[in-house]
Amino acid sequence: MQRISAKQTLVKTKKKSKNNEFILEKIAVIGGGSWATALVKILSENKSQVHWWMRNKNDVQHLVNYKHNPRYLSGVQFDLNYVKPNPDLQAVVAAADWVILAVPAAFVQEAIVGLPKDALEGKVIVSAIKGMIPDENILITEYVEQHFNVPNSHQLVIAGPCHAEEVALEKQSYLTIGSHDISTAERFCELLRNRYVKANPLDDLDGIEYCAVMKNIIALACGIARGLNYGDNFQAVLVSNAMFEIERFLDAIMPLHRSLSGSAYLGDLLVTAYSQFSRNRTFGNMIGRGYTVKSAQVEMNMVAEGYYAVKSIYELNKKLNVVMPITNAVYLILYEKISPGVEFEILKEKLK
Amino acid sequence: MQRISAKQTLVKTKKKSKNNEFILEKIAVIGGGSWATALVKILSENKSQVHWWMRNKNDVQHLVNYKHNPRYLSGVQFDLNYVKPNPDLQAVVAAADWVILAVPAAFVQEAIVGLPKDALEGKVIVSAIKGMIPDENILITEYVEQHFNVPNSHQLVIAGPCHAEEVALEKQSYLTIGSHDISTAERFCELLRNRYVKANPLDDLDGIEYCAVMKNIIALACGIARGLNYGDNFQAVLVSNAMFEIERFLDAIMPLHRSLSGSAYLGDLLVTAYSQFSRNRTFGNMIGRGYTVKSAQVEMNMVAEGYYAVKSIYELNKKLNVVMPITNAVYLILYEKISPGVEFEILKEKLK
Repeated sequence: MQRISAKQTLVKTKKKSKNNEFILEKIAVIGGGSWATALVKILSENKSQVHWWMRNKNDVQHLVNYKHNPRYLSGVQFDLNYVKPNPDLQAVVAAADWVILAVPAAFVQEAIVGLPKDALEGKVIVSAIKGMIPDENILITEYVEQHFNVPNSHQLVIAGPCHAEEVALEKQSYLTIGSHDISTAERFCELLRNRYVKANPLDDLDGIEYCAVMKNIIALACGIARGLNYGDNFQAVLVSNAMFEIERFLDAIMPLHRSLSGSAYLGDLLVTAYSQFSRNRTFGNMIGRGYTVKSAQVEMNMVAEGYYAVKSIYELNKKLNVVMPITNAVYLILYEKISPGVEFEILKEKLK
Repeated sequence: MQRISAKQTLVKTKKKSKNNEFILEKIAVIGGGSWATALVKILSENKSQVHWWMRNKNDVQHLVNYKHNPRYLSGVQFDLNYVKPNPDLQAVVAAADWVILAVPAAFVQEAIVGLPKDALEGKVIVSAIKGMIPDENILITEYVEQHFNVPNSHQLVIAGPCHAEEVALEKQSYLTIGSHDISTAERFCELLRNRYVKANPLDDLDGIEYCAVMKNIIALACGIARGLNYGDNFQAVLVSNAMFEIERFLDAIMPLHRSLSGSAYLGDLLVTAYSQFSRNRTFGNMIGRGYTVKSAQVEMNMVAEGYYAVKSIYELNKKLNVVMPITNAVYLILYEKISPGVEFEILKEKLK
């Protein structure tokens, strides 16, 4: 992997806050979901100062009053010396040197489009989003580059395998930080590492980001299979075939010598496809059992990223023409209302 | 994969049995466990004549009387026009052109050592065993080659991902048949294929066989991790790292260009490492929770192949010196009585 761009030293020294507390870095976290909440926990416990934006003003007030996020990982208590909840997005971004985007992909445009064009200048932007900008079918890092003029050497992506729920429980987890600038990625790893989190840099920003998008499609497919009463044998074959499908797609869109068995690729896929916490899998399961897309979404009251991801990848692939039987099957089921049972009868003939 | 030996046509035409029933092939199945039982179901329902040996005479009699295996997959009913249970090993082997070995690796020597040296001559030997000969540390195919003079062009291995329990439930499953002779492997695939089983040949006899051995070690490690209260995030990283460990070992012992994402490698590992049916995982879980090896074995009343496999691979690796942190950790826990908690604290530092 040879695409590391000219390095710029973005590494900072320790600072003091107004109350004379040592702080590592000033970080903005945009989003109030479970993954955002887990990242705020990790970073603030490591003594970075986290300026935390969430849309809902009542949730911000609840955090200020009770030190808990009322909606996600609500067992986690925050130290308000390090965590600064704030519903003013521009103020949150202005206060930080690092900006972590952690809203669902479908809402990221809506969330940050109002920021001034130069609001992100000189900052490191970290995408914790596993999805693409709907309709435009571009990656989050591409969107940030195009709309805010942030070069991709100033951008990072966070890859799992890491369920937020297990971070809240302080279970041993591993993160991979993708970047074109390994020294910045390594600095961000330092901010994350603790007793139960290991973090490693990897110089494949785009591959990691695409893989994170596609894993949600595969998890959704695993859920559909389960809903249709396929078993463990079938799921193992589905995931094996998915690895080839992801490899073919990445080779077509962003060729690079990658070892897809790595934690950031296969690991991330496994935790999503096999875990009880995966909302994509749960969503797929409901589809497989016969729910409509709308009723499954209402029932879950959560966004399954794979629902949007499959449309973006399917549309991107119209130009690339990569053989993608799993992605195509999920697309046809969700967007063309083909019966899951019928579509999986066709899909199962294509797997081996 | 270029190691296909000179092909010999072993493909047969349809035959008639004494009762004028059409039969495909005459096949001996050695072993009465769940995987043997599943294979007998598949092959006999496809109208091969299956001569079925199991050690326990009462079980043979039960099969003859009631058409069910009393111990494993006992919901499956057999058609005795096609299934011929028999406690006489030599007669079973003599009656067949194909011999499937399906006893646990630790017992295979004991089971077949009494056969005359030429008993397997001219037959195709199929290993459904996922283990090695203990102490000798050789693969089953190597043992058959050495002790019965069967060239490895007359040998096949069956790889999953395929839990016997799901075959009994007729859930969609995929098998890979490894061989140095693709035409024989393809013929065996024909005998297996049905409404819920797909089978594909693959020319990597040894790689598939080693991978099947090692996956049990990894499943055992996953079980230990679970028993120690590690979560899904950790397991995904463990499996990702295991893929590299298996790749390094195969490259050292049997170099060949392989794509380990295939169903016969990754798929087989996943179904073992993640499934509720995996006895290696269950065994590891008990070890992680503090059971001794002996008490876990007594409690389970089943052989966990990984227990023997880890000793063989560990000892083989003394000469190869491949970096194998997971295998080493499992070995030290099971054979050197190192505390699982302590060993996994060390292991977790080596993963990424």
